[in-house]
Amino acid sequence: MLKNVLAKADEIEGKIVEYRRDFHKYPEVGWTEYRTSSLIGRRLRELGYQVLVGRDILSDEDRMGLPPGEELDSHWQRALEQGGDPEYLELMKGGFTGVAGIMEGGKGKTRAFRFDIDALPLSESDDITHFPVQEGFASVNEGVMHACGHDFHGAAGLGVAELIAENRDDLKGTVKLIFQPAEEGVRGAKSMVARGLLDDVDRVVGFHVHEYALGEISSGLSGFIATKKFDVLIDGKPAHAGGEPQDGANALLAAATAVLNLHAIPRHRDGATRINVGSLRSGSGRNIIPDRAHMIVETRGADSGLSRYMYEKAERVIEHSCRMYDCAYEILPMGEALSGASDPELMRLVEETAEQIGGYVCIDKHTSFGSEDFTYMMAKVQENGGKAVNIGIGADKIGDGFHSRNLDLNEDALKKAMVLISMLAFR
Amino acid sequence: MLKNVLAKADEIEGKIVEYRRDFHKYPEVGWTEYRTSSLIGRRLRELGYQVLVGRDILSDEDRMGLPPGEELDSHWQRALEQGGDPEYLELMKGGFTGVAGIMEGGKGKTRAFRFDIDALPLSESDDITHFPVQEGFASVNEGVMHACGHDFHGAAGLGVAELIAENRDDLKGTVKLIFQPAEEGVRGAKSMVARGLLDDVDRVVGFHVHEYALGEISSGLSGFIATKKFDVLIDGKPAHAGGEPQDGANALLAAATAVLNLHAIPRHRDGATRINVGSLRSGSGRNIIPDRAHMIVETRGADSGLSRYMYEKAERVIEHSCRMYDCAYEILPMGEALSGASDPELMRLVEETAEQIGGYVCIDKHTSFGSEDFTYMMAKVQENGGKAVNIGIGADKIGDGFHSRNLDLNEDALKKAMVLISMLAFR
Amino acid sequence: MLKNVLAKADEIEGKIVEYRRDFHKYPEVGWTEYRTSSLIGRRLRELGYQVLVGRDILSDEDRMGLPPGEELDSHWQRALEQGGDPEYLELMKGGFTGVAGIMEGGKGKTRAFRFDIDALPLSESDDITHFPVQEGFASVNEGVMHACGHDFHGAAGLGVAELIAENRDDLKGTVKLIFQPAEEGVRGAKSMVARGLLDDVDRVVGFHVHEYALGEISSGLSGFIATKKFDVLIDGKPAHAGGEPQDGANALLAAATAVLNLHAIPRHRDGATRINVGSLRSGSGRNIIPDRAHMIVETRGADSGLSRYMYEKAERVIEHSCRMYDCAYEILPMGEALSGASDPELMRLVEETAEQIGGYVCIDKHTSFGSEDFTYMMAKVQENGGKAVNIGIGADKIGDGFHSRNLDLNEDALKKAMVLISMLAFR
Amino acid sequence: MLKNVLAKADEIEGKIVEYRRDFHKYPEVGWTEYRTSSLIGRRLRELGYQVLVGRDILSDEDRMGLPPGEELDSHWQRALEQGGDPEYLELMKGGFTGVAGIMEGGKGKTRAFRFDIDALPLSESDDITHFPVQEGFASVNEGVMHACGHDFHGAAGLGVAELIAENRDDLKGTVKLIFQPAEEGVRGAKSMVARGLLDDVDRVVGFHVHEYALGEISSGLSGFIATKKFDVLIDGKPAHAGGEPQDGANALLAAATAVLNLHAIPRHRDGATRINVGSLRSGSGRNIIPDRAHMIVETRGADSGLSRYMYEKAERVIEHSCRMYDCAYEILPMGEALSGASDPELMRLVEETAEQIGGYVCIDKHTSFGSEDFTYMMAKVQENGGKAVNIGIGADKIGDGFHSRNLDLNEDALKKAMVLISMLAFR
Repeated sequence: MLKNVLAKADEIEGKIVEYRRDFHKYPEVGWTEYRTSSLIGRRLRELGYQVLVGRDILSDEDRMGLPPGEELDSHWQRALEQGGDPEYLELMKGGFTGVAGIMEGGKGKTRAFRFDIDALPLSESDDITHFPVQEGFASVNEGVMHACGHDFHGAAGLGVAELIAENRDDLKGTVKLIFQPAEEGVRGAKSMVARGLLDDVDRVVGFHVHEYALGEISSGLSGFIATKKFDVLIDGKPAHAGGEPQDGANALLAAATAVLNLHAIPRHRDGATRINVGSLRSGSGRNIIPDRAHMIVETRGADSGLSRYMYEKAERVIEHSCRMYDCAYEILPMGEALSGASDPELMRLVEETAEQIGGYVCIDKHTSFGSEDFTYMMAKVQENGGKAVNIGIGADKIGDGFHSRNLDLNEDALKKAMVLISMLAFR
Repeated sequence: MLKNVLAKADEIEGKIVEYRRDFHKYPEVGWTEYRTSSLIGRRLRELGYQVLVGRDILSDEDRMGLPPGEELDSHWQRALEQGGDPEYLELMKGGFTGVAGIMEGGKGKTRAFRFDIDALPLSESDDITHFPVQEGFASVNEGVMHACGHDFHGAAGLGVAELIAENRDDLKGTVKLIFQPAEEGVRGAKSMVARGLLDDVDRVVGFHVHEYALGEISSGLSGFIATKKFDVLIDGKPAHAGGEPQDGANALLAAATAVLNLHAIPRHRDGATRINVGSLRSGSGRNIIPDRAHMIVETRGADSGLSRYMYEKAERVIEHSCRMYDCAYEILPMGEALSGASDPELMRLVEETAEQIGGYVCIDKHTSFGSEDFTYMMAKVQENGGKAVNIGIGADKIGDGFHSRNLDLNEDALKKAMVLISMLAFR
Repeated sequence: MLKNVLAKADEIEGKIVEYRRDFHKYPEVGWTEYRTSSLIGRRLRELGYQVLVGRDILSDEDRMGLPPGEELDSHWQRALEQGGDPEYLELMKGGFTGVAGIMEGGKGKTRAFRFDIDALPLSESDDITHFPVQEGFASVNEGVMHACGHDFHGAAGLGVAELIAENRDDLKGTVKLIFQPAEEGVRGAKSMVARGLLDDVDRVVGFHVHEYALGEISSGLSGFIATKKFDVLIDGKPAHAGGEPQDGANALLAAATAVLNLHAIPRHRDGATRINVGSLRSGSGRNIIPDRAHMIVETRGADSGLSRYMYEKAERVIEHSCRMYDCAYEILPMGEALSGASDPELMRLVEETAEQIGGYVCIDKHTSFGSEDFTYMMAKVQENGGKAVNIGIGADKIGDGFHSRNLDLNEDALKKAMVLISMLAFR
Repeated sequence: MLKNVLAKADEIEGKIVEYRRDFHKYPEVGWTEYRTSSLIGRRLRELGYQVLVGRDILSDEDRMGLPPGEELDSHWQRALEQGGDPEYLELMKGGFTGVAGIMEGGKGKTRAFRFDIDALPLSESDDITHFPVQEGFASVNEGVMHACGHDFHGAAGLGVAELIAENRDDLKGTVKLIFQPAEEGVRGAKSMVARGLLDDVDRVVGFHVHEYALGEISSGLSGFIATKKFDVLIDGKPAHAGGEPQDGANALLAAATAVLNLHAIPRHRDGATRINVGSLRSGSGRNIIPDRAHMIVETRGADSGLSRYMYEKAERVIEHSCRMYDCAYEILPMGEALSGASDPELMRLVEETAEQIGGYVCIDKHTSFGSEDFTYMMAKVQENGGKAVNIGIGADKIGDGFHSRNLDLNEDALKKAMVLISMLAFR
């Protein structure tokens, strides 16, 4: 079967590269991956998968950091114009992006694979030395760019889908391919988990392309900074600052008190914590007591407990800063990720599989210092007694690295990824 | 009758001066005027007054700024040793000082007169040029001094008592002589008002000696800064600052947040306001998160409404500063005074009476910028439809003025005061 | 001569109403009064005045609260399209608006008259009951409206110019008609004073239409709240809040510290003070330590000394809040007004003149609680030994009053104003 | 030679236990170890050491956290009364405690050994089950107790001195025995280092008794939390809060601003940091603007760089909080410790020596989480190219552990310590 997979992979590699370039050319930020999701859905259906989209895979109220309605609408329209599949687009209106493909094989465990597909709000470099510019697939969506490799993830996911479908008869148990929206800002996974998409899963596998050399893999990333991202809306009462200073409920004084005291949240014995008020906007006229304030905030912790500690302290600071100034307030969740650890058993399985396939080097880079909302899926599966693993796949470093305007990666990594991941479906 | 009063006044003047010097020699701070009160009580009884003391004239829980129990006890003991009346002392234990004398005459209105009798926590000058030093009646109670003229008030009150008693047959209506404790810090009047001592009063007269020339009087002081004085006790949780920083409830951070935000209470359109955190004590060891804080605070307003505004804002700031840091807190009232206005009708009566007696010059100094808790008595009587007046009586300026260590006043003012005040009992 | 003036006033009244409606239809905010100024300049020249514009009457660096260059340019362009005088426009480029007309008569004092001409950033009501809508002269410049009566001031100024020119032979001394830009936000007068426009003036007269009844006048407004309006730009250093928290220079923490401590500036014994941070904008991304902050601030005082007190304390707070966080900062002056008092001698002259003319009622509304930068001109003239007066002229209250979208005033006030003011030129 | 040492150790063990009990009975806090130092000095002289005391071993201005003069004096007096050596006492007046003994042997390296000798401000338990109570050597100095084992250190040091002196002929190089004052609060070592006491040292050895089992040793402690301990004195200007609020320079507002912003110092990427304002005392009267404030503060870092980072940020916050309120301030250093690492070469030497002697078990507890100012001596020696080691010596856990009122340790540890340490003098 490995021979079959390898042969098929050689055959489809060119097509997968085309997918990657297509996704790269039409990047879409979180909750607006209409075109990407609809095309993936159509392809999964062609390959024989049962396809789930929209409210079937997303819990409405758990979608964090949703853009405003007009933005959702205009991006939906753009997706239609840029060749999205109309049938699927219809089901995704209002920011219900992402897609899942299910294929049932013989009796056995349910294995899920997760591919995140959103881009970043960044303008791609137009430098002629930048490969996508040279090859004509640089972003045509101004201010949006696949600068974190999720175009690789989506394309490799379609490769995995085809390699599995091709060897469907060898399948024991059920395969779930999850194309997740809005990973940037760690906003999307929670909604899929809340909808129950991981409830029946025995094993979940995620991966991310990395800057190590092509062929190198990390069999199981762990760590991840747990984080909560939230906005605070403060609502006071305006008054003429000269004439009626006593009548205002000063939202800016509430916010300033919160900012100072948020940064004064005590450090924690158990490890690193972080707090940042990234932005504050408050007030209007010079002689009007500010009645509104808007803060965007982020707390982090080296593990989920530390993250919760910071968030709970922050909640208390915000509540009483606002009530001190007789202001109402609202805390809007905008993103959340947990810490997480890959299961050693699955890590060994990844290493064995890689060895069996050949051409991979297992490296010892298992600790991740970023945040990743795949941790939500890991936690749900592990909580139910299943296993989870998050694999790092080397794709060389080209350009200035992730989240830079001239990020580029080695397209040979696509085959490396799809072969390894798809083989895990048969183990 | 005026002739009688004047003759009697001449007769008793020497005795009243002796009272004044005796009170001056044995000064007692607020709520510890045991000796002063008991001797006044004894004298009033001798003069035929019905004498009320202790819980009969004071509402226990409304006594603000009461010293600690051991201090009350030691001062009580001192009073006994310095010749206080044992019978009355017994009834005053625990800080129930002050005394009222009631004399009923013919049918008519109830007229109350208030004399405050407490001293200040100040060490009297021992300079040989200081009159009490020369005459041997300087304070023998270290750290306590009559530096605000209340020795004059108490002594003049005994003069008034005798002049009225002497002319008892001419009395229409009831006279109440109120010797009030704890005027300094505006702590005592509220408790007497709360006990109902002013409930049946139709007319209340207060007075204060002032630095204007002997013979000059202000027929009716008004204004007065309304104020609330209170302590704040904050109770958090200690923790080792290095080892368990997350476990504390930091009373000092709560207090610091309160201090800043108290001073940031908005100004008010309607007039002057003030706030001061006069003292903050918090914490113990360098490496222990402070679990306790003690603040002493004062709010003021140009009128009672502005004072209430400041106090209510302060309460809110304190509540939420403490709750932000998970600290409990208590606000202890330590003093309170209202603003107040003398009734024009009574002011005219004072002027007419002064003119009739002769030897007084009415001056136009009617606005007071200090605080005075006689305002509580004024407010209660006016609220019930009665009238109130607060008279200023010139006593020359000697030394550096009120609240200074070498304050001295002209003892001739004693007769000026007792004649004018006692004549008002007959009008 | 009064007869001449009155006859001429009757004759030109209709034209002056037309001017007012024209100015009202094409309103221009401070420092963009290109069309208004250029048309006034042209008319003054026609009437025989020496006309000064641009840098001849304005000190470049003292123009406070200047809009950005592109806004100046687009408004200049609009002025050209809406019929501004091209010759004068050329001289006003870059926000050098306003105009002065000088006419020399016989030997005598120099009398200046000030008319402010700018509009407010407000959208005019389109309600059919609103008089300018009915008569077709409502603002055609979206978001700009003459809602403070400066259209009356400018038009009346042209009336005054014509009445004086008509009676030029009776003129003793020199007349200066000053059409001032940017009174809103108290931005423009300082620049004219700094350029020396008031240096040779012996008597300066200003006026403002008010909501009292037509015919009522206040002979001399005084008081005025002294104020400083300024922006604060804070410049720190960004850093990744999760990865390099120690590397930032947090402009938001600096600003929050400033906001709290600005509001905590102590009250002042001598009278009312105010402080307001009307707006704070800081930061960008959620996980970036904010490197920029922009505050708009206003301090006020019941007199110029109190205003200076507040501003100097504010400067100190801002400096050290920024330096505490290693941030650079800049304080940009955006407006300033002093307190001021009309000279009693001139007030009497106004009253006598009004009586002589007839049809005016002098009312006793002399205290103003707003801010007005005519105070700069008053201060300069008084400093040089001259006299100043600021007159209130009743124009009825129609609509919701000044600064409201449906402000309207009685156009008969135009004649009332121009007759009274022009007669003062001959006294 | 080992045999000689062991035999002598057996012989003197009883005497060393007596020393320990004597030190325990007469405990002295940092900079007041007059009696302890003088008796050690006398004994060292008897044993043939060159003895250095006072300004010969301490840099005056580097003595941190010195008690007030009257306290130094009264403790000196007590030392005299409790049997201190008058001759040495004379040289230690004014808080110049501690002592060093020098013995020169044959040609070779200079080896220093450090023993700290101060007690804690803690009242010893009077429970009959507490061993010192039973045996009659509990502290007779109320409020002072050897609750950190420094009585063991001092006594073992005298044992080491005797064992070395006994085998003087085998000595290669110079031995320096340093009995350091004021280790609690990490105050004393810096002063000795600054005086040059470690300048010629090639190898420095320190040790601390620990709660592990008797016989267990850690061959080389490392880590140690770097820390700065300092007091802040703020000096503003008082003013009557009601009458002249604008005239104060409010030290409490400065302090409150500092407290908040000190806690808001950003976390650091490189590891754990701490800040604590352990105490704030400010202000006096309720209606007086506080003109004084006193804060006691501590910063910590996982290494010396992090500690310096925290301290430098704290300095900046304090400076600008004070200057914001026009207050002067002073930062008084009260203690300081570095991080430090034992040299592996010396750790091996310790292990080999222990093995050679027999009866020790080397355990793997090398990381210390406390602070220790021996790090100053380590740093100085290592800086000069020498080696340093800090040994942990098990003494069983009895009572509630270090810094508790019923701390007790196994006296058999005295011999364990003196044998091991003295043998290191010959290697």
